[in-house]
Amino acid sequence: MDLKALHTISYGLYIVASRNGDAINGQIANAVIQVSGEPVSVAVCINKRNLTNEYIKKSKMFSVSVLDAETPLSVIQRFGFKSGREIDKFQGISFNKGKSGLPYLTDHVLSYLEADVVQEVDAGTHDVFIGKVTDAGLFKNSPPLTYAHYRFIKKGGIPEAAPVFEKKEMGGNAQLDKYVCSVCGYIYDPEDGDPEGGIPPRTPFDELPDDWVCPVCGAGKEKFEREER
Amino acid sequence: MDLKALHTISYGLYIVASRNGDAINGQIANAVIQVSGEPVSVAVCINKRNLTNEYIKKSKMFSVSVLDAETPLSVIQRFGFKSGREIDKFQGISFNKGKSGLPYLTDHVLSYLEADVVQEVDAGTHDVFIGKVTDAGLFKNSPPLTYAHYRFIKKGGIPEAAPVFEKKEMGGNAQLDKYVCSVCGYIYDPEDGDPEGGIPPRTPFDELPDDWVCPVCGAGKEKFEREER
Repeated sequence: MDLKALHTISYGLYIVASRNGDAINGQIANAVIQVSGEPVSVAVCINKRNLTNEYIKKSKMFSVSVLDAETPLSVIQRFGFKSGREIDKFQGISFNKGKSGLPYLTDHVLSYLEADVVQEVDAGTHDVFIGKVTDAGLFKNSPPLTYAHYRFIKKGGIPEAAPVFEKKEMGGNAQLDKYVCSVCGYIYDPEDGDPEGGIPPRTPFDELPDDWVCPVCGAGKEKFEREER
Repeated sequence: MDLKALHTISYGLYIVASRNGDAINGQIANAVIQVSGEPVSVAVCINKRNLTNEYIKKSKMFSVSVLDAETPLSVIQRFGFKSGREIDKFQGISFNKGKSGLPYLTDHVLSYLEADVVQEVDAGTHDVFIGKVTDAGLFKNSPPLTYAHYRFIKKGGIPEAAPVFEKKEMGGNAQLDKYVCSVCGYIYDPEDGDPEGGIPPRTPFDELPDDWVCPVCGAGKEKFEREER
């Protein structure tokens, strides 16, 4: 059984959010699909360990913000690699609240949906929440952020709590080798550098400043391992 | 409420298949996601009217063939716009059977999965089947067929039984107008012509031969309407 087959499934990237009274929280999710035309319903798949899961179970509601292809890694870092139990993820983020009081992002977002949960399904590590869509808005027509784009063009990592997470073994040996963050899976490619972090293209990993951190999860250089060729 | 927001969700395109004793059937599906890391599980969303739905309910199993970006429209026409109640969809198609006796395609397929249904969820027009993955194989690494690629590059139609289906109203008036198939939604764009059907680029709709048919669903020219601008 070759589970790499699962990596060929295509996804977008979304922020799924919910609330608990006045408290709000959201997280990156990839597994979002429409599941019915009448009533119009969507399903989202959320790790049981996540605060957003807890909020959805309490409020029986969720929102989905559909991210665009230009979404900066910093947004994915904040919503995908931090816990709402430790920080207010929406601090410093532009957002509105929809009819149900649920937050949705307003920058780098193509559209949003709000839904009332009608079924909760325990799938193992994750719950699948099926929601009847109660409100929806389209902000612009431009390319969405897809999971493939994020992984292979932006070279982003995978939160350990994602259904697609997989631990990698590392090895290899060379000057312009790529280095992989052992915490989140982000790949530092010397050809690209880290422009958002002030690192120009063609900077070898060894020449990165000592205080350089993973642009996705914030781990230090010591957490990086040479990528296996 | 602007339901066009739903069109910003990203999907791949798959053939989901099942069996009823020795009889096999399969259909195009877009809503396929991984929903758990342990046990490894996937969800597929299938219209209640479809024969594949009936077979999945009987056998409690399904397979998923992940289509590649080069999949010809004829495969999508056969599996997406014909019913297994009328034809044997696998006739003339290259396929293998997996451990469970379920078919998966072998041409233009990146990978396949087989799963045992552990939960069936009635979502309205569709059922969501959650299956524990029992076998999986990866055949090649190349780009998958995404729903966006199919719709906007291949300009393919949407089967009425898909969760994303939407009836369109048409209008407009001009020589190089696009024409939309009222049966399946395929868009004939004179700029592109229909190379698979022997129609060169820059052929106005009016100059198509009388026996030209929709490359997706096989409808005649009379089923086409000028696209609203």
